[in-house]
Amino acid sequence: MISDLNQSLQTFLDELASAEPAPGGGSVAALSGALGASLVAMVCRLTIGKKGYEAVGAEMRAILPRAEALRRELADLMQADTDAYTRVMNAYKLPKSTSDEQTARTRAIQAALQHASDVPLRVAEACGQILELARVVAIGGNKNAASDGGVGALMAEAGLRGAAFNVTINLSSIKDEAFVADRHARVAKLVADADRAKCEILSIVEKGSV
Amino acid sequence: MISDLNQSLQTFLDELASAEPAPGGGSVAALSGALGASLVAMVCRLTIGKKGYEAVGAEMRAILPRAEALRRELADLMQADTDAYTRVMNAYKLPKSTSDEQTARTRAIQAALQHASDVPLRVAEACGQILELARVVAIGGNKNAASDGGVGALMAEAGLRGAAFNVTINLSSIKDEAFVADRHARVAKLVADADRAKCEILSIVEKGSV
Repeated sequence: MISDLNQSLQTFLDELASAEPAPGGGSVAALSGALGASLVAMVCRLTIGKKGYEAVGAEMRAILPRAEALRRELADLMQADTDAYTRVMNAYKLPKSTSDEQTARTRAIQAALQHASDVPLRVAEACGQILELARVVAIGGNKNAASDGGVGALMAEAGLRGAAFNVTINLSSIKDEAFVADRHARVAKLVADADRAKCEILSIVEKGSV
Repeated sequence: MISDLNQSLQTFLDELASAEPAPGGGSVAALSGALGASLVAMVCRLTIGKKGYEAVGAEMRAILPRAEALRRELADLMQADTDAYTRVMNAYKLPKSTSDEQTARTRAIQAALQHASDVPLRVAEACGQILELARVVAIGGNKNAASDGGVGALMAEAGLRGAAFNVTINLSSIKDEAFVADRHARVAKLVADADRAKCEILSIVEKGSV
Protein backbone atom coordinates (compact mmCIF):
# COMPACT_ATOMS: atom_id res chain seq x y z
CA MET A 1 0.00 0.00 0.00
CA ILE A 2 2.99 2.33 0.10
CA SER A 3 4.29 4.17 -2.89
CA ASP A 4 6.89 6.35 -1.20
CA LEU A 5 9.96 7.37 -3.14
CA ASN A 6 12.43 5.76 -0.74
CA GLN A 7 11.43 2.27 -1.79
CA SER A 8 13.44 0.62 -4.54
CA LEU A 9 12.26 0.40 -8.13
CA GLN A 10 12.10 -3.39 -7.65
CA THR A 11 9.82 -3.09 -4.62
CA PHE A 12 7.59 -0.60 -6.39
CA LEU A 13 7.22 -2.88 -9.44
CA ASP A 14 6.55 -5.87 -7.14
CA GLU A 15 3.85 -4.01 -5.18
CA LEU A 16 2.32 -2.75 -8.39
CA ALA A 17 2.09 -6.27 -9.84
CA SER A 18 0.67 -7.70 -6.59
CA ALA A 19 -3.02 -8.43 -5.97
CA GLU A 20 -3.28 -5.29 -3.81
CA PRO A 21 -5.28 -2.69 -5.77
CA ALA A 22 -2.96 0.13 -4.60
CA PRO A 23 -0.53 1.28 -5.80
CA GLY A 24 -2.13 0.99 -9.22
CA GLY A 25 -2.69 2.94 -12.40
CA GLY A 26 -3.18 6.23 -10.56
CA SER A 27 0.25 6.15 -8.95
CA VAL A 28 1.84 4.99 -12.21
CA ALA A 29 0.27 7.93 -14.05
CA ALA A 30 1.85 10.34 -11.55
CA LEU A 31 5.19 8.51 -11.78
CA SER A 32 5.04 8.69 -15.56
CA GLY A 33 4.68 12.46 -15.30
CA ALA A 34 7.60 12.61 -12.85
CA LEU A 35 9.74 10.61 -15.30
CA GLY A 36 8.76 13.06 -18.05
CA ALA A 37 9.64 16.07 -15.88
CA SER A 38 13.01 14.48 -15.02
CA LEU A 39 13.85 14.01 -18.69
CA VAL A 40 12.89 17.60 -19.50
CA ALA A 41 15.14 18.75 -16.64
CA MET A 42 17.97 16.57 -17.98
CA VAL A 43 17.74 18.11 -21.46
CA CYS A 44 17.77 21.61 -19.89
CA ARG A 45 20.95 20.71 -17.98
CA LEU A 46 22.56 19.26 -21.13
CA THR A 47 21.78 22.54 -22.97
CA ILE A 48 22.65 25.24 -20.43
CA GLY A 49 26.20 26.51 -20.95
CA LYS A 50 26.80 24.31 -24.01
CA LYS A 51 28.56 25.72 -27.06
CA GLY A 52 26.11 26.52 -29.85
CA TYR A 53 23.21 26.88 -27.41
CA GLU A 54 24.04 30.30 -25.95
CA ALA A 55 20.88 31.82 -27.47
CA VAL A 56 18.55 29.49 -25.56
CA GLY A 57 20.48 29.48 -22.27
CA ALA A 58 18.16 31.93 -20.50
CA GLU A 59 15.06 30.04 -21.70
CA MET A 60 16.44 26.70 -20.46
CA ARG A 61 17.43 28.27 -17.12
CA ALA A 62 13.85 29.50 -16.73
CA ILE A 63 12.35 26.10 -17.58
CA LEU A 64 14.60 23.98 -15.35
CA PRO A 65 13.14 25.02 -11.95
CA ARG A 66 9.61 24.62 -13.35
CA ALA A 67 10.38 21.07 -14.48
CA GLU A 68 11.93 20.31 -11.08
CA ALA A 69 8.91 21.73 -9.22
CA LEU A 70 6.54 19.61 -11.33
CA ARG A 71 8.69 16.54 -10.70
CA ARG A 72 8.45 17.09 -6.92
CA GLU A 73 4.72 17.72 -7.08
CA LEU A 74 4.08 14.58 -9.15
CA ALA A 75 6.19 12.51 -6.77
CA ASP A 76 3.96 13.75 -3.91
CA LEU A 77 0.85 13.00 -5.99
CA MET A 78 1.93 9.34 -6.34
CA GLN A 79 1.42 8.99 -2.61
CA ALA A 80 -1.65 11.26 -2.59
CA ASP A 81 -3.33 9.00 -5.15
CA THR A 82 -2.82 5.92 -2.98
CA ASP A 83 -4.06 7.84 0.09
CA ALA A 84 -7.15 9.04 -1.79
CA TYR A 85 -7.97 5.45 -2.76
CA THR A 86 -7.63 4.36 0.89
CA ARG A 87 -9.96 7.18 1.98
CA VAL A 88 -12.66 6.02 -0.46
CA MET A 89 -12.32 2.41 0.73
CA ASN A 90 -12.56 3.53 4.36
CA ALA A 91 -15.65 5.64 3.66
CA TYR A 92 -17.43 2.60 2.18
CA LYS A 93 -16.66 0.70 5.42
CA LEU A 94 -18.48 3.26 7.63
CA PRO A 95 -21.52 1.93 9.56
CA LYS A 96 -24.91 2.19 7.85
CA SER A 97 -27.36 0.80 10.42
CA THR A 98 -29.25 4.00 11.20
CA SER A 99 -30.54 6.73 8.96
CA ASP A 100 -28.01 9.19 10.44
CA GLU A 101 -25.19 6.74 9.79
CA GLN A 102 -26.35 6.27 6.24
CA THR A 103 -26.40 10.02 5.63
CA ALA A 104 -22.96 10.47 7.16
CA ARG A 105 -21.57 7.53 5.19
CA THR A 106 -22.95 8.79 1.88
CA ARG A 107 -21.51 12.24 2.57
CA ALA A 108 -18.10 10.76 3.44
CA ILE A 109 -18.10 8.57 0.31
CA GLN A 110 -19.02 11.48 -1.92
CA ALA A 111 -16.35 13.73 -0.39
CA ALA A 112 -13.76 10.96 -0.72
CA LEU A 113 -14.70 10.33 -4.35
CA GLN A 114 -14.44 14.04 -5.19
CA HIS A 115 -10.99 14.10 -3.61
CA ALA A 116 -10.05 10.89 -5.43
CA SER A 117 -10.99 12.52 -8.73
CA ASP A 118 -9.25 15.81 -7.97
CA VAL A 119 -5.88 14.16 -7.24
CA PRO A 120 -5.59 12.62 -10.73
CA LEU A 121 -7.01 15.83 -12.22
CA ARG A 122 -4.04 17.66 -10.73
CA VAL A 123 -1.74 14.90 -12.09
CA ALA A 124 -3.23 15.48 -15.54
CA GLU A 125 -2.79 19.27 -15.26
CA ALA A 126 0.84 18.89 -14.16
CA CYS A 127 1.52 16.49 -17.06
CA GLY A 128 0.02 19.07 -19.43
CA GLN A 129 2.43 21.67 -18.04
CA ILE A 130 5.35 19.27 -18.60
CA LEU A 131 4.29 18.90 -22.23
CA GLU A 132 4.50 22.70 -22.62
CA LEU A 133 8.07 22.60 -21.26
CA ALA A 134 8.91 19.54 -23.40
CA ARG A 135 7.88 21.48 -26.49
CA VAL A 136 10.30 24.34 -25.72
CA VAL A 137 13.04 21.81 -25.00
CA ALA A 138 12.33 19.92 -28.25
CA ILE A 139 12.62 23.14 -30.26
CA GLY A 140 15.67 24.72 -28.65
CA GLY A 141 17.37 22.05 -26.52
CA ASN A 142 20.57 20.08 -27.16
CA LYS A 143 20.01 18.06 -30.34
CA ASN A 144 22.10 15.19 -28.92
CA ALA A 145 19.44 14.77 -26.24
CA ALA A 146 16.44 15.24 -28.55
CA SER A 147 15.20 11.69 -28.06
CA ASP A 148 15.32 12.12 -24.28
CA GLY A 149 13.03 15.14 -24.62
CA GLY A 150 10.82 13.09 -26.93
CA VAL A 151 10.57 10.26 -24.39
CA GLY A 152 9.81 12.90 -21.76
CA ALA A 153 6.86 14.10 -23.85
CA LEU A 154 5.65 10.51 -24.32
CA MET A 155 5.76 9.88 -20.57
CA ALA A 156 3.94 13.14 -19.77
CA GLU A 157 1.20 12.39 -22.32
CA ALA A 158 0.78 8.79 -21.12
CA GLY A 159 0.64 10.06 -17.52
CA LEU A 160 -2.00 12.63 -18.45
CA ARG A 161 -4.13 10.10 -20.29
CA GLY A 162 -3.79 7.58 -17.45
CA ALA A 163 -4.74 10.20 -14.87
CA ALA A 164 -7.75 11.12 -17.01
CA PHE A 165 -8.98 7.52 -16.71
CA ASN A 166 -8.83 7.79 -12.95
CA VAL A 167 -10.72 11.08 -12.89
CA THR A 168 -13.45 9.66 -15.11
CA ILE A 169 -13.86 6.46 -13.12
CA ASN A 170 -14.42 8.35 -9.88
CA LEU A 171 -16.81 10.77 -11.59
CA SER A 172 -19.06 7.83 -12.53
CA SER A 173 -20.00 7.44 -8.83
CA ILE A 174 -20.29 11.14 -7.94
CA LYS A 175 -23.80 12.58 -7.57
CA ASP A 176 -23.03 16.33 -7.76
CA GLU A 177 -23.91 16.93 -11.42
CA ALA A 178 -22.26 20.34 -11.68
CA PHE A 179 -19.01 18.89 -10.26
CA VAL A 180 -19.14 15.97 -12.70
CA ALA A 181 -19.84 18.18 -15.73
CA ASP A 182 -17.05 20.60 -14.80
CA ARG A 183 -14.48 17.82 -14.34
CA HIS A 184 -15.51 15.99 -17.51
CA ALA A 185 -15.03 19.19 -19.50
CA ARG A 186 -11.64 19.89 -17.93
CA VAL A 187 -10.38 16.37 -18.56
CA ALA A 188 -11.59 16.37 -22.17
CA LYS A 189 -9.71 19.62 -22.84
CA LEU A 190 -6.53 18.35 -21.15
CA VAL A 191 -6.60 15.10 -23.16
CA ALA A 192 -7.20 16.88 -26.47
CA ASP A 193 -4.49 19.50 -25.83
CA ALA A 194 -2.00 16.82 -24.75
CA ASP A 195 -2.59 14.67 -27.80
CA ARG A 196 -1.96 17.68 -30.06
CA ALA A 197 1.14 18.72 -28.10
CA LYS A 198 2.58 15.21 -28.16
CA CYS A 199 2.16 14.89 -31.93
CA GLU A 200 3.83 18.28 -32.48
CA ILE A 201 6.74 17.44 -30.18
CA LEU A 202 7.32 14.00 -31.71
CA SER A 203 7.28 15.57 -35.16
CA ILE A 204 9.96 18.09 -34.09
CA VAL A 205 12.11 15.38 -32.48
CA GLU A 206 11.78 12.99 -35.45
CA LYS A 207 12.73 15.71 -37.92
CA GLY A 208 15.81 16.51 -35.89
CA SER A 209 16.98 12.96 -35.31
CA VAL A 210 16.72 11.26 -38.70
CA MET B 1 25.32 6.03 -14.50
CA ILE B 2 23.55 3.20 -12.66
CA SER B 3 19.97 2.26 -13.29
CA ASP B 4 19.78 -0.89 -11.16
CA LEU B 5 16.49 -1.82 -9.58
CA ASN B 6 17.80 -1.72 -6.03
CA GLN B 7 18.10 2.03 -6.07
CA SER B 8 15.18 4.06 -4.77
CA LEU B 9 12.64 5.75 -7.02
CA GLN B 10 13.95 9.08 -5.70
CA THR B 11 17.55 8.27 -6.66
CA PHE B 12 16.49 7.08 -10.10
CA LEU B 13 14.51 10.29 -10.74
CA ASP B 14 17.45 12.38 -9.46
CA GLU B 15 19.96 10.60 -11.71
CA LEU B 16 17.60 10.88 -14.64
CA ALA B 17 17.22 14.64 -14.17
CA SER B 18 20.98 15.15 -13.73
CA ALA B 19 23.35 16.41 -16.43
CA GLU B 20 24.66 12.85 -16.94
CA PRO B 21 23.30 11.59 -20.28
CA ALA B 22 22.65 8.09 -18.81
CA PRO B 23 20.27 6.92 -17.54
CA GLY B 24 18.08 8.71 -20.08
CA GLY B 25 15.17 8.13 -22.40
CA GLY B 26 16.26 4.60 -23.28
CA SER B 27 16.12 3.38 -19.69
CA VAL B 28 12.83 5.21 -19.12
CA ALA B 29 11.31 3.49 -22.16
CA ALA B 30 12.25 0.09 -20.69
CA LEU B 31 10.93 1.13 -17.26
CA SER B 32 7.69 2.30 -18.85
CA GLY B 33 7.28 -1.18 -20.35
CA ALA B 34 8.03 -2.79 -16.98
CA LEU B 35 5.37 -0.58 -15.34
CA GLY B 36 2.90 -1.66 -18.04
CA ALA B 37 3.74 -5.34 -17.51
CA SER B 38 3.30 -4.92 -13.74
CA LEU B 39 -0.17 -3.41 -14.19
CA VAL B 40 -1.20 -6.22 -16.56
CA ALA B 41 0.00 -8.74 -13.95
CA MET B 42 -1.97 -6.91 -11.25
CA VAL B 43 -5.21 -7.05 -13.24
CA CYS B 44 -4.63 -10.80 -13.83
CA ARG B 45 -4.21 -11.32 -10.08
CA LEU B 46 -7.35 -9.26 -9.35
CA THR B 47 -9.29 -11.45 -11.82
CA ILE B 48 -8.07 -14.99 -11.06
CA GLY B 49 -10.41 -16.75 -8.61
CA LYS B 50 -12.85 -13.81 -8.46
CA LYS B 51 -16.58 -14.42 -8.55
CA GLY B 52 -18.07 -13.69 -11.95
CA TYR B 53 -14.72 -14.21 -13.69
CA GLU B 54 -14.59 -18.02 -13.60
CA ALA B 55 -14.80 -18.22 -17.42
CA VAL B 56 -11.57 -16.22 -17.93
CA GLY B 57 -9.61 -17.76 -15.06
CA ALA B 58 -7.56 -20.10 -17.26
CA GLU B 59 -6.78 -17.30 -19.72
CA MET B 60 -5.61 -14.98 -16.94
CA ARG B 61 -3.51 -17.76 -15.39
CA ALA B 62 -1.82 -18.24 -18.77
CA ILE B 63 -1.14 -14.51 -19.21
CA LEU B 64 0.23 -13.83 -15.73
CA PRO B 65 3.60 -15.65 -16.11
CA ARG B 66 4.08 -14.04 -19.53
CA ALA B 67 3.52 -10.57 -18.06
CA GLU B 68 5.92 -11.37 -15.21
CA ALA B 69 8.60 -12.64 -17.63
CA LEU B 70 8.30 -9.47 -19.73
CA ARG B 71 8.53 -7.35 -16.58
CA ARG B 72 11.79 -9.08 -15.59
CA GLU B 73 13.21 -8.81 -19.09
CA LEU B 74 12.40 -5.09 -19.33
CA ALA B 75 13.94 -4.46 -15.93
CA ASP B 76 17.14 -6.09 -17.22
CA LEU B 77 16.92 -4.03 -20.42
CA MET B 78 16.93 -0.80 -18.38
CA GLN B 79 20.45 -1.65 -17.31
CA ALA B 80 21.37 -3.06 -20.74
CA ASP B 81 20.42 0.25 -22.36
CA THR B 82 22.73 2.20 -20.07
CA ASP B 83 25.53 -0.34 -20.68
CA ALA B 84 25.04 -0.12 -24.45
CA TYR B 85 25.36 3.68 -24.29
CA THR B 86 28.58 3.36 -22.28
CA ARG B 87 29.96 0.90 -24.85
CA VAL B 88 29.35 3.38 -27.69
CA MET B 89 31.00 6.20 -25.71
CA ASN B 90 34.03 3.97 -24.98
CA ALA B 91 34.34 2.96 -28.64
CA TYR B 92 34.53 6.63 -29.67
CA LYS B 93 37.38 7.09 -27.16
CA LEU B 94 39.57 4.39 -28.83
CA PRO B 95 42.90 5.59 -30.30
CA LYS B 96 42.89 6.67 -33.94
CA SER B 97 46.54 7.59 -34.66
CA THR B 98 47.39 4.81 -37.10
CA SER B 99 45.42 3.34 -39.98
CA ASP B 100 45.03 0.05 -38.08
CA GLU B 101 43.72 1.89 -35.04
CA GLN B 102 41.26 3.81 -37.18
CA THR B 103 39.95 0.59 -38.73
CA ALA B 104 39.62 -1.09 -35.33
CA ARG B 105 37.94 1.98 -33.86
CA THR B 106 35.43 2.26 -36.71
CA ARG B 107 34.62 -1.45 -36.38
CA ALA B 108 34.17 -1.11 -32.60
CA ILE B 109 31.94 1.95 -33.00
CA GLN B 110 29.76 0.27 -35.61
CA ALA B 111 29.40 -2.91 -33.51
CA ALA B 112 28.54 -0.81 -30.43
CA LEU B 113 25.97 1.21 -32.38
CA GLN B 114 24.32 -1.95 -33.72
CA HIS B 115 24.10 -3.30 -30.18
CA ALA B 116 22.80 0.06 -28.94
CA SER B 117 20.02 -0.07 -31.52
CA ASP B 118 19.17 -3.74 -30.86
CA VAL B 119 18.65 -3.19 -27.12
CA PRO B 120 15.82 -0.65 -27.61
CA LEU B 121 14.48 -2.77 -30.49
CA ARG B 122 14.02 -5.60 -27.99
CA VAL B 123 12.42 -3.11 -25.57
CA ALA B 124 9.97 -2.14 -28.31
CA GLU B 125 9.19 -5.79 -29.13
CA ALA B 126 8.59 -6.60 -25.45
CA CYS B 127 6.30 -3.56 -25.11
CA GLY B 128 4.36 -4.79 -28.16
CA GLN B 129 3.91 -8.15 -26.45
CA ILE B 130 2.62 -6.41 -23.32
CA LEU B 131 0.04 -4.59 -25.44
CA GLU B 132 -1.21 -7.98 -26.69
CA LEU B 133 -1.64 -9.13 -23.09
CA ALA B 134 -3.21 -5.80 -22.09
CA ARG B 135 -5.83 -6.27 -24.79
CA VAL B 136 -6.87 -9.68 -23.38
CA VAL B 137 -6.95 -8.20 -19.88
CA ALA B 138 -9.03 -5.22 -21.04
CA ILE B 139 -11.60 -7.52 -22.62
CA GLY B 140 -11.91 -10.20 -19.93
CA GLY B 141 -10.27 -8.82 -16.78
CA ASN B 142 -11.84 -7.53 -13.57
CA LYS B 143 -13.90 -4.46 -14.51
CA ASN B 144 -13.00 -2.78 -11.21
CA ALA B 145 -9.38 -2.72 -12.39
CA ALA B 146 -10.14 -1.72 -15.98
CA SER B 147 -8.38 1.63 -15.67
CA ASP B 148 -5.25 -0.10 -14.32
CA GLY B 149 -5.16 -2.23 -17.45
CA GLY B 150 -5.72 0.90 -19.53
CA VAL B 151 -2.79 2.68 -17.84
CA GLY B 152 -0.74 -0.47 -18.43
CA ALA B 153 -1.48 -0.21 -22.15
CA LEU B 154 -0.56 3.49 -22.15
CA MET B 155 2.78 2.77 -20.47
CA ALA B 156 3.58 -0.10 -22.85
CA GLU B 157 2.79 2.04 -25.91
CA ALA B 158 4.78 5.02 -24.61
CA GLY B 159 7.69 2.66 -23.84
CA LEU B 160 7.53 1.20 -27.34
CA ARG B 161 7.44 4.60 -28.98
CA GLY B 162 10.29 5.86 -26.79
CA ALA B 163 12.39 2.78 -27.56
CA ALA B 164 11.70 3.33 -31.27
CA PHE B 165 13.30 6.80 -30.98
CA ASN B 166 16.42 5.22 -29.56
CA VAL B 167 16.61 2.60 -32.31
CA THR B 168 16.24 5.26 -34.99
CA ILE B 169 18.85 7.59 -33.51
CA ASN B 170 21.48 4.86 -33.46
CA LEU B 171 20.57 3.76 -36.99
CA SER B 172 21.40 7.25 -38.29
CA SER B 173 25.12 6.55 -37.60
CA ILE B 174 25.22 2.90 -38.80
CA LYS B 175 26.80 2.23 -42.20
CA ASP B 176 25.48 -1.29 -42.89
CA GLU B 177 22.57 -0.40 -45.17
CA ALA B 178 20.87 -3.79 -45.00
CA PHE B 179 20.93 -3.66 -41.19
CA VAL B 180 19.52 -0.13 -41.20
CA ALA B 181 16.75 -0.95 -43.68
CA ASP B 182 15.76 -4.08 -41.74
CA ARG B 183 15.60 -2.26 -38.41
CA HIS B 184 13.72 0.74 -39.83
CA ALA B 185 11.08 -1.62 -41.24
CA ARG B 186 10.76 -3.53 -37.98
CA VAL B 187 10.40 -0.36 -35.92
CA ALA B 188 7.83 1.14 -38.28
CA LYS B 189 5.69 -2.01 -38.01
CA LEU B 190 6.00 -2.12 -34.21
CA VAL B 191 4.99 1.56 -33.89
CA ALA B 192 2.00 1.19 -36.24
CA ASP B 193 0.77 -2.01 -34.55
CA ALA B 194 1.16 -0.47 -31.09
CA ASP B 195 -0.74 2.67 -31.99
CA ARG B 196 -3.64 0.57 -33.29
CA ALA B 197 -3.58 -1.76 -30.26
CA LYS B 198 -3.50 1.16 -27.82
CA CYS B 199 -6.51 2.84 -29.46
CA GLU B 200 -8.48 -0.42 -29.37
CA ILE B 201 -7.62 -1.08 -25.73
CA LEU B 202 -8.47 2.46 -24.61
CA SER B 203 -11.78 2.22 -26.44
CA ILE B 204 -12.61 -1.04 -24.61
CA VAL B 205 -11.60 0.43 -21.23
CA GLU B 206 -13.49 3.69 -21.78
CA LYS B 207 -16.68 1.87 -22.78
CA GLY B 208 -16.47 -0.26 -19.65
CA SER B 209 -15.71 2.51 -17.19
CA VAL B 210 -18.17 5.28 -18.03
